[in-house]
Amino acid sequence: MNQFPIGEHISQEFNSELGGLRRQLLTMGGLVEQQIIDALRVLREGDSALAEKLDQADQEINQLEIALDEAGSHILVRRQPAASDLRLIFAILKASSDLERVGDEASKIGRLFLSLPIQERDPAGFHEVVRLGEAAQNIIHGALDAFARVDANAALTILREDFRIDRDYESFIRQSITYMMEDPRTIRRVFNSLWIGRSMERIGDHAKNICEYVIYLVYGKDVRHARTDEIEKLMHTRPGTSK
Amino acid sequence: MNQFPIGEHISQEFNSELGGLRRQLLTMGGLVEQQIIDALRVLREGDSALAEKLDQADQEINQLEIALDEAGSHILVRRQPAASDLRLIFAILKASSDLERVGDEASKIGRLFLSLPIQERDPAGFHEVVRLGEAAQNIIHGALDAFARVDANAALTILREDFRIDRDYESFIRQSITYMMEDPRTIRRVFNSLWIGRSMERIGDHAKNICEYVIYLVYGKDVRHARTDEIEKLMHTRPGTSK
Repeated sequence: MNQFPIGEHISQEFNSELGGLRRQLLTMGGLVEQQIIDALRVLREGDSALAEKLDQADQEINQLEIALDEAGSHILVRRQPAASDLRLIFAILKASSDLERVGDEASKIGRLFLSLPIQERDPAGFHEVVRLGEAAQNIIHGALDAFARVDANAALTILREDFRIDRDYESFIRQSITYMMEDPRTIRRVFNSLWIGRSMERIGDHAKNICEYVIYLVYGKDVRHARTDEIEKLMHTRPGTSK
Repeated sequence: MNQFPIGEHISQEFNSELGGLRRQLLTMGGLVEQQIIDALRVLREGDSALAEKLDQADQEINQLEIALDEAGSHILVRRQPAASDLRLIFAILKASSDLERVGDEASKIGRLFLSLPIQERDPAGFHEVVRLGEAAQNIIHGALDAFARVDANAALTILREDFRIDRDYESFIRQSITYMMEDPRTIRRVFNSLWIGRSMERIGDHAKNICEYVIYLVYGKDVRHARTDEIEKLMHTRPGTSK
């Protein structure tokens, strides 16, 4: 079963190799999603034991990225992939590098949490970053789903979502500055949530990157530095190869 | 002249294509280095006109990354590169993605600077981040140099440097928090330099990534998640392919 309906491959074996690469990526995506969920639970419930587990999960994700890179290279060396297959392999390798960085952010949250004195591990202090984190989790989930279904329209929808997280993040920073100015005793506490908020924003950015790879996969066009209206125009004027 | 002494290619044409790819990367590296230098000048001299130019230079760098990706794909499609050549192409493409992000950080510094009210553009307020930035510039320069010379030993030296920048960055943050607590009127000003300091730290991280690709190029081993002592051990027990 080839769920990436791009190109027809003469070789069944090659097909199954590509399928395997894709499955590896989605497995990695599942682990990364679980890590974000766990990081959010750490913050919501003040769960220190779970915070310790985040670093361990990150090492597993790192190993998966290395394995994916190696598997991708082997396919490239042994086969002579057509342009569209090459695009698929590239997109998978790039997405895996973004997922690895998302894993880094989640484990950074765990380490930060563990570095706090017990009295600062109060879930009440993380209310706002948890909201940012839920938004980040949503768009990572959506981005992986769009990748699995090679759905450029879904990817475009998520690209627009990311601008919203960026806006929320900015207003979160402005609010944090206000808190600190009003009551300097909160500075240290506000700082902790600022670092976590920054990780959430970056998770959103990686989701955005993954969506851009989906559009690259379907339209063959690198849209990393394009505005969303330019991407929309591309999608209206050029039929996707998977449509 | 092939300055990448890895593998002997039967085809002269292929050789010159690889050389071209490499030159494109080094051109990109030169532009990125200049952008860091310009960002530092903006901070040192309060030069608003130059700050505006940073964004423009970033767009040029973005286009270079896209062009490199395309050139790399074409080579992969047309040739059947041997494992060592594939490694070179991979390393170039990965390094170009890091350079592109360095360019993003530099133009972010320009935008932040321009968003400040005139009285906050005072170079006196940026003294500490400029020091961080000089260290970042140094290690980017060293990383590009190690890449150009495929010098794994130089790359390892720089990997150790990056830990020092990370330490300096952390003490900079601790100091910033102290300033704010002592005089809450400085909060907004300190925040500006915090964002800039964060960009400098990330530039250091990208330099570190580039060094890891050099070691990957020479030793064929992905060391992205290895500790420096593990890398040293690898370099002592396994002769590099370029040695």
